Amino acid sequence: MEIEFREGISEVIATTRNDQPNAAPMGIINRDFIYAVIYKDSHTFLNVKKNRELVANFVLDPLLYVKTAFDDLDSSFFRSDEPAPVLAAAYAWVEFECTILEKPTQKSALVKLLPVKSVVVQRPIISINRAFCAVLEATIHATRYRALRDPKYLELVDHYESIVRKCGGRREIEAFQLLKERLA
Amino acid sequence: MEIEFREGISEVIATTRNDQPNAAPMGIINRDFIYAVIYKDSHTFLNVKKNRELVANFVLDPLLYVKTAFDDLDSSFFRSDEPAPVLAAAYAWVEFECTILEKPTQKSALVKLLPVKSVVVQRPIISINRAFCAVLEATIHATRYRALRDPKYLELVDHYESIVRKCGGRREIEAFQLLKERLA
Repeated sequence: MEIEFREGISEVIATTRNDQPNAAPMGIINRDFIYAVIYKDSHTFLNVKKNRELVANFVLDPLLYVKTAFDDLDSSFFRSDEPAPVLAAAYAWVEFECTILEKPTQKSALVKLLPVKSVVVQRPIISINRAFCAVLEATIHATRYRALRDPKYLELVDHYESIVRKCGGRREIEAFQLLKERLA
Repeated sequence: MEIEFREGISEVIATTRNDQPNAAPMGIINRDFIYAVIYKDSHTFLNVKKNRELVANFVLDPLLYVKTAFDDLDSSFFRSDEPAPVLAAAYAWVEFECTILEKPTQKSALVKLLPVKSVVVQRPIISINRAFCAVLEATIHATRYRALRDPKYLELVDHYESIVRKCGGRREIEAFQLLKERLA
């Protein structure tokens, strides 16, 4: 396996499909084995339940993390030359076969992930940008705010905005702009 | 130039030398041109002033960011086969020629960076781990706390600790442990 998921949680964009492909940010957890915890009322879970298929996409564009957290992607964002739902923007991706270890009483399911295909499209040398991480953090807090309406999440979004403004490039600033529109 | 510094600030470990090599986390700023803002009372600045040489090291190990923020590295951490001070752990590095654009009344100097050599040792596919970013953020706040003793920085360190515990692997947890020892 050339693409290694480091111990802990790797933040990727997960893609699945039904009639249409679907994309959403997701943590791929590597502790003893590889799995994800997926909300049962999500499109991702419905698709996984139907096809037992999930692709972890490695992407550089912070805007895609925000976009997939809040919006649907149309089919132009996906590769047309792959049978699996793969993002055109992915520089690497791993296709998993999924086994749902459902706990009936809970809101989310543990989904065990078995890698069946991994493709490296490009090997960019990526410098660490605090603003990129800040966009991801703010996206997580913004989705929690939309669900729970607790103002503490908005304070965290503000904290991360200051990092985006200080350290970000155009793409991080655009991503944060979209995030604020979705919060409005 | 195969290694591109994205627009905004890239967090690297900067190495310089005098009699001994020195290493410290640093932001490489790419806005119109490439530069860094360096405290004048730092080892890094003294070395840059003497040799006009600075290497930006790309490393995967979060522990090295914490270690170089607080401690000196002995020579075993550096490559012996390079004339420039390069970290053995660097998977890629860029050597810069430095021009100091000093403002005499200020505590820090703007140092313009002209890339003269760039080497890609490996091209790892790196998944994004929130805990890795959290270690970097906490390190920044910890060094500010040590300088300014404002408790707001400790609160931020606590916030990032919760991310490290949730999302980190062994290496992020070890890095955070070292950070807490240096804060004690």
